[in-house]
Amino acid sequence: MLKMMCNGRFDDNSQWLDRGLHYGDGLFETMAVRDGGIPLWNRHWQRLQQGCQRLQITSPDKALLETEIATLARGYGQAVMKLLLTRGQGERGYRIPAQAQPNRYLFLSSWPDPVNTAVRLHVCETRLGLNPALAGIKHLNRLEQVLARSEWQDPQIQEGIMLDQNGCVIEGTMSNIFWARQQRLYTAELSQCGVAGIMRELVMEATQTLNISIQTGLWPLSEMMQADEIFITNSLICVWPVRYINNKEYIPGPITKKLQQHLQHLYEN
Amino acid sequence: MLKMMCNGRFDDNSQWLDRGLHYGDGLFETMAVRDGGIPLWNRHWQRLQQGCQRLQITSPDKALLETEIATLARGYGQAVMKLLLTRGQGERGYRIPAQAQPNRYLFLSSWPDPVNTAVRLHVCETRLGLNPALAGIKHLNRLEQVLARSEWQDPQIQEGIMLDQNGCVIEGTMSNIFWARQQRLYTAELSQCGVAGIMRELVMEATQTLNISIQTGLWPLSEMMQADEIFITNSLICVWPVRYINNKEYIPGPITKKLQQHLQHLYEN
Repeated sequence: MLKMMCNGRFDDNSQWLDRGLHYGDGLFETMAVRDGGIPLWNRHWQRLQQGCQRLQITSPDKALLETEIATLARGYGQAVMKLLLTRGQGERGYRIPAQAQPNRYLFLSSWPDPVNTAVRLHVCETRLGLNPALAGIKHLNRLEQVLARSEWQDPQIQEGIMLDQNGCVIEGTMSNIFWARQQRLYTAELSQCGVAGIMRELVMEATQTLNISIQTGLWPLSEMMQADEIFITNSLICVWPVRYINNKEYIPGPITKKLQQHLQHLYEN
Repeated sequence: MLKMMCNGRFDDNSQWLDRGLHYGDGLFETMAVRDGGIPLWNRHWQRLQQGCQRLQITSPDKALLETEIATLARGYGQAVMKLLLTRGQGERGYRIPAQAQPNRYLFLSSWPDPVNTAVRLHVCETRLGLNPALAGIKHLNRLEQVLARSEWQDPQIQEGIMLDQNGCVIEGTMSNIFWARQQRLYTAELSQCGVAGIMRELVMEATQTLNISIQTGLWPLSEMMQADEIFITNSLICVWPVRYINNKEYIPGPITKKLQQHLQHLYEN
């Protein structure tokens, strides 16, 4: 690199060469902080490791990262920690630098305000591209989600449902989605697109304990719309019963309630 | 945002909140510099504008950007300018901030060394996901290219061919691809994936002037492999005749030569 400029100023900050900025070459985790700690840390770490393997990013040292997270979270009863791990700096070109030194960024922000109204979903026109090489992991290529989220401004709508290119239900822009029909729970399989959420994993494990029958697969929106119960999940919201999709109403039912009860201890001491 | 940390240090550099880093929420252009100027600037600017429209990013001021580029490129006879435009900073979440102020980054680097050997292509296993919402534009979600480029280390191989999820030829990791068979030129149509290159556009215009018949469409690799001539294009390499794909040999023919001759004036005074 000969020279750099940022917004009209000469700038020799070599961190502008981060491949996270240039290519979205990295991963992230959004984690709930409780009493200065991350209750689901082991699962977030595990998923980060899987992402590192898939993208061939050198994993950071676990103990070091834990110390940094603890330092940043210390004293916060309830907050959100975003961990962003990039491949690190590189010169021009897609080729992975032989000596890439991953960069780790931590962002602590306030816990979001609780949602006081019934959860309402929009069905997004922006669809998810199919790509098994990137499916499942929480990487930094998130333009599909940005475009999907730009489809609504109505503050009454909390989330958007994203379909794949074939019109099958995959997930929300920032959540996974489950629906129940005739005592059986359904959710999308994520081998072609989507993010395998930590809370999705916990819900799936809970179905075992609670003896709820669950099936993963790909179904069109019309199939999901006939559900008896629908809920969305992520690490911050845990389980949110869905009340409306467009104008169709759903009533939170026994399966949703059972799972909510089972998982409510997650962030308690 | 309450607090930030980068590689273990508390850091209040608000530019770490750039949505380019978090989501790949932005665009880029890689441009040839000649005698302190950008010969193809108007085309790069035009494509950037189209990208801004597609991603709903506020376009930067053209005159301002031109001044900045001229300042950075001044005195360089031959160099590469990368322009990176992001949506700007934002708080946590995919929602586009109402008052987003795009950030513009300029990177000037040396002109690459000329390739002295016959151009050899690898056929990548990593495929391009299908997504019309992102197809054609030069956005910052480039993990597919990073993974594809990681498939080979052999310095004799200059580029990798990328197919879409259906096995059709789309482009190279950093170039577009054309092939000729029985006096007719072919290249991929890019409505589902791929980047619409500036040099691709110039080649297509040149076929008109030179009365070369050209067809865009989607064809499997086996179809392209039967070509008489193959070449790849981008703004830096212009037209590169391909000599080998895996071990199959191709001989640069009359159509490739005609186009090379026609386009060689682009970067001359």
